[in-house]
Formats: sequence, structure tokens, C-alpha cells
Amino acid sequence: MPVQSGPGAGPEPVTGYSGRMIVLFTDFGLEGPYTGQVKAVLARDAPGAVVVDLFADLPPCNAKAAAYLLPAFAREFAAGDVFLCVIDPGVGGARMPVVVEADGRFFVGPGNGLFEMIRRRAKTPRLFEITWKPARLSASFHGRDLFAPVAARIARGDAVPGEIRAPDAGPAADWPDDLAEIVYVDRFGNCMTGLRAASVAPDAGLEAGGRAVPRQRTFSDVADGAVLCYENANGLIEIAANGSRADRALGLSVGSPVRVLHARG
Amino acid sequence: MPVQSGPGAGPEPVTGYSGRMIVLFTDFGLEGPYTGQVKAVLARDAPGAVVVDLFADLPPCNAKAAAYLLPAFAREFAAGDVFLCVIDPGVGGARMPVVVEADGRFFVGPGNGLFEMIRRRAKTPRLFEITWKPARLSASFHGRDLFAPVAARIARGDAVPGEIRAPDAGPAADWPDDLAEIVYVDRFGNCMTGLRAASVAPDAGLEAGGRAVPRQRTFSDVADGAVLCYENANGLIEIAANGSRADRALGLSVGSPVRVLHARG
Amino acid sequence: MPVQSGPGAGPEPVTGYSGRMIVLFTDFGLEGPYTGQVKAVLARDAPGAVVVDLFADLPPCNAKAAAYLLPAFAREFAAGDVFLCVIDPGVGGARMPVVVEADGRFFVGPGNGLFEMIRRRAKTPRLFEITWKPARLSASFHGRDLFAPVAARIARGDAVPGEIRAPDAGPAADWPDDLAEIVYVDRFGNCMTGLRAASVAPDAGLEAGGRAVPRQRTFSDVADGAVLCYENANGLIEIAANGSRADRALGLSVGSPVRVLHARG
Repeated sequence: MPVQSGPGAGPEPVTGYSGRMIVLFTDFGLEGPYTGQVKAVLARDAPGAVVVDLFADLPPCNAKAAAYLLPAFAREFAAGDVFLCVIDPGVGGARMPVVVEADGRFFVGPGNGLFEMIRRRAKTPRLFEITWKPARLSASFHGRDLFAPVAARIARGDAVPGEIRAPDAGPAADWPDDLAEIVYVDRFGNCMTGLRAASVAPDAGLEAGGRAVPRQRTFSDVADGAVLCYENANGLIEIAANGSRADRALGLSVGSPVRVLHARG
Repeated sequence: MPVQSGPGAGPEPVTGYSGRMIVLFTDFGLEGPYTGQVKAVLARDAPGAVVVDLFADLPPCNAKAAAYLLPAFAREFAAGDVFLCVIDPGVGGARMPVVVEADGRFFVGPGNGLFEMIRRRAKTPRLFEITWKPARLSASFHGRDLFAPVAARIARGDAVPGEIRAPDAGPAADWPDDLAEIVYVDRFGNCMTGLRAASVAPDAGLEAGGRAVPRQRTFSDVADGAVLCYENANGLIEIAANGSRADRALGLSVGSPVRVLHARG
Repeated sequence: MPVQSGPGAGPEPVTGYSGRMIVLFTDFGLEGPYTGQVKAVLARDAPGAVVVDLFADLPPCNAKAAAYLLPAFAREFAAGDVFLCVIDPGVGGARMPVVVEADGRFFVGPGNGLFEMIRRRAKTPRLFEITWKPARLSASFHGRDLFAPVAARIARGDAVPGEIRAPDAGPAADWPDDLAEIVYVDRFGNCMTGLRAASVAPDAGLEAGGRAVPRQRTFSDVADGAVLCYENANGLIEIAANGSRADRALGLSVGSPVRVLHARG
């Protein structure tokens, strides 16, 4: 089967869908009632919208790791789609509630750096401070009480209920354009980095966990148990081990540093 | 940001949604096929109904803990919504299958005490014994074969397929109105109690795990690592630790007792 | 309550649903973005189709175990429904992408033995090799890029985008008709085997973990903590322990062998 991969690879453009999606991107966890409570609000406030559970298990309270995952996963979605992003350790504190509009997509959530890479990489980003207030607001669950109603309003076509600010007037984070760290470990022990494949040489490997990790196309290109790095299906450099868990083989977890090994010539 | 909290706090009333929701409240677990099989039945029998996964990970086989969680989470839902509640260790045995109608909402499931607090707190509860029988009924999965079809029928507007009984004719449980125990531990290690915030003094703290746990408004009101209790976003008293896990800090799990410490004047 | 069980038991036929379901049957795991990314493709390519999460936690990379689970769970679904099945350790390699049509239902996924029991047990199976190619295909995520678009096309009524092959021309697996092994362990520690209840005597027990496991109707037929085997709600022989975990009691996990103990006449 012919395989095409490389910067920008992803599913082909789709047709026939005219509605807007609301995409959940949170650290709520798979357990418990929080995602369900948010979906109940969305179903009432934006009936008919398709709600997609993209991530519920982002590294808890880690806005920085999530900031590098968000653009990699958002690129598959279309103009008009709305991302409800809740990684909000400062809930109830002073952080600004925001909406970022980036190339037609909308990102709703706390202004704590979570949207920093989305903003930097967008052609014409717009920043809104959410000024709408719900009639009642709990101290600990703004995802349900504030951000979900705002996402629903945008998904049903209302104007963003906020005031526009200069795009860099929000809380900017002093973070690099690509992050040489592990930002997510998946079920299989594969370790996603915050490095875009398009930002490193096509044959550049990594150093991780004290070992060299060679660049390959896919798992089956290396021996059983061997480690490799490759461009994952979302354009990020990811570390895996053929037939076993890379996180255990290399002692990696979220936050572990990696280093790009530039190929010779 | 202005924060309003207190008894009855929750998302503001919503508009624009005319359908009925079916809310899943079970101990099926996140894994495996059980929730999916139930949803397939609901999709066929009540096409168009919105199905919300509220809880799939309630403490297994623990109808008592669930009985105190249910009214706290049900209060956000509207008249006409249907709760499909399955915590059913006695499946295949003698417990009565019931529907409780409480202030316009419907609760479908086993009559094993699960609806005791819903019934006690409702203005005009009605109890039905389910008399409808499916053509085929497995010995071990009445959630799929009996309760899901009944919930679907109610959601699509049919009459409750059962016979009305005196509200207290069902299996009553000799449980207190508020439960001074941990009833759920969430992903973050926060420990929900069966105590309604409206039932204790606004400044009353708790004793839990052998330690005093002071009452606060939210996490950020205490030092890093310190424990606190507060009214959670669903009106229950909950124990947390700022930036860490309260369950580990205090050695708490489902069933651990707590004691209300009445504030000095 | 009267209980009817036995071969073919399941929910009664349903009415009122005219659409097609897309059923997810994968080892993607509960965590992470993979299921969400697949659902986003389905929502765009087959708007309005009901998507049911049947299994996301099948034993990873174990097409054989899944091959015996699939027909047991597929029997509840109707003609026209589409199964999107992804257990694909050979992604990016030489395995053939296929669609199997079996008694009106469609099964889309890798040709690695996953559909072997579906094909064998169908009255008039048809095998298609998928010949359609997406404009872009990642090296590691054909579930999203190839199989999901194909499933969506079939669900919306398009012809299967492939070429018909002789039903046994695909990759046949030299596996028995019933598998005397554990193929899934559920949340409660119940252990499903690959044995159909209809294939063994109604009173046949099992030997598992070095112990005899008697055949019963349901949990409550044995003493607390005792082990039993019974026909589960999907027609498979399953091992459980009343009020505790059978996997721990007997030391069982996926792949553990069992042996049928034929009852003395």
C-alpha cells in the first residue's frame, strides 16, 4: 500500500458535513462526572452540535505540555469548529478567561499559556477576553459553568461573548517554538515530543533517556524491541519501541527532556 | 472574576433544547462493552435522544454511596430527563425493578436503595414497579435487556411501563438523610462526602483520617499541600488538598467516615 | 422475575430506528486522542450516523482474541450496521485492508485474521479488498486515514470501495472454531472465554487455573467467593466469582487456557 507521510500529512479533506464540531481537550480524566456534566450543558445550549472527545487525559494541570499538543491535533479540524480546552489549575483565581480565534477555529478556555502556540502559529489570531458572566458560577468548575456555555454559543453561531484585545495582550508564555520534552505518553507507551517534524531535519534522530534514538518511517522498520523516533500521524516527533513500550525502555515520562541529534551530512 | 457559590449553585438555566436526555449513572466501568451495548439499545429504541455519560465508574456494587451522589448530580437536569441507573449486584435475584418519578425527572433501575435519597427529597415522588418484560432477558445483564428499553420508552414519551405503588412501598433503606462518609474519589484524589453543604453550617469543618480539615471556599485559599473542605460544584462537601491528592494525604477511600466539626460560634 | 437465557438470548428486536450504526471495536485504549480523531472523521464523512463505542480496550495487538469476541457482540446489531475494527499491529506493512460483509453487516479493518470467525459463521460472506486510497495516508494510523473513511462511506449507503475476492481468498487463520482460552477480562475480573455456550453441553463445567469451575446459571447460585462458569449475556462461556474477582482467584489473564469438563451423563 502506498504510504505518504510528511509535514501536513493527515486525513484528506472531507465533504458533506455542514455543522460545527465542539472538540473537548481537557485534563478532566476518563473517570467521574466532569466530562458528562460539560456535555449536558453543550447538549442543551448547542443542540445538534457534534461533540468530539479528543483528549480527556491530558497531563493534569500542565498547560505547557498541552500548548504543544493542541496545534498538532487542531490542524485536522475545520474553520468554524470550536475547541473547549480546560486545563485550569488556577480556577477561581485571577487568570483571564479567553477565546482565541485562529484561522477560523475557536479556542475557549483559561488564559494560562494553553493557547500560546496556537496564537503564535496562526496567520491572523484574534484574542477575546470573555466578559459574559453566567447567572451562577461555582468556585471550582468553570469548565461547566463558564467555558462550556461560551463554546456552545460560538458553535451555534453567536458572536464571541467577549471583548477583543491585542493578540499578544493576553498572558504570553516565555516558551520556545518547539519543546524538546515529552508532552504525552499514550496507551502503548509511545512518547510524543513537543517537536514538530517540520522543524527538524528529515533524518535527525533524538537522544532520550541517555540513548540515541534513530529516525525511521514506522515501527516495522526496526528490529523487535528496538527504539525509534518518527513523525507521528499528527506531525510531531514521537518515540516508540517496536513491539514494546518506549516509556519503560527509556525511562521516559511527561517532562523528560530530549535532544535533537543532527544527522551527519 | 466574581464568584457566586452556595446552596443551589450550578449552571444557569438553559434554553433552546427541547428534547429529553438519557443520563447514564452506572458502575459498568470505563472499560469493556457494557456501556456501548446499552447505548446501542438506546439508539435503536429512542433515536434522537441525547445520551449523556454522567458516571460509569461509581463504586462497584455500592448502591448506598450512589444514593447520595445521585440527587447532587441530578439537580442540573430538567423535567423530562431520564436517568438510567445500574448498580445491580442482585441482578437475576429478587430485587424489584422500578421507576421513580421525582419532580418530573425519571429514574430507572433496580429497587435496592439506589433511589432512596431521590425519593425522600422529592416534592411528589411516584414509584412504579416495572411490569413490562422484554421478549428475552439474560440472567446477568438487565441494564441492557430491561432497564435500557424502559428508559428509552420513557424518553420517547411513552407512559412508564409499570404499575404505580405507594411511594414508600418500595424497598426503603434505613439510611440517614446525609451520609458522613466518603462516597466518591475523583481523578485528582478529591473525596466527595455524602453531606450536603446546605445541611451543615457554612463554616463547619470536618475531621477525616484523624485530622481536622478546615472549611474554605476553594483550593487556592490554602497553602500548597494543605487540606481543605469546601462545597463542591454539585453542592456536596468535598475534601481536597491544594496541588496534591487528599485521598493519599489523609488515607481516605470510599466508605471512610468523616465527622462534622461545628465551628465555635 | 422470569429469566430466559440460552443460545441466542439477547435484547429483543427493536423498532423505530432507520439509520445505520457505526460500531467501534478497537484496541486504541480509553486514553488519548485516537478514538476522538476517528470519530471526527466519521462525523464529517457520515453526518447523522450513530457511533457506538463497543470496545476500545480489546487486548492490544491481539487479533486472535478479538476474532472470537466479535461475532458474540456483533449478533445484537442489524443488517446495514458497520463495524470499524482496528487491531492492527502490522499497520504500514503488507496486510490487506478488507471489508467483510456477513449477513448484511459490514466489517471494516485489517486482514489479519480479525474477521476469521465472522466469515466462517456467516451464511453468505463476501470479502472485499479495499482498493480506494485516501489522498493522504499516514504511516501509523490507518484507522483514522483509511478504515474510518471507508466505514463512513458504507454507512451513508455508498458501495464498498473495493474489489470482491473469493470469501476464503483473504488471509485465513488456522484457528479452531471455538477457542478454549480467556479472551477478555472485564472490570469486575470476570473472564470471557472464546467458547460459545451453544458449542458445549448445557451442564459442562471448565477447568481453569488448575481448578474445576462448575457450570451455573448466574452469580447468586453459588456461595460468596465461589467460582462458577455460565453463559454470559453474549452467548460466551464466562468465568466469574460471586462477590470477588475470578481473574485473581484463579490466576487468569488473556491467553490463559481452559478445558471443558464434560458432565457425566
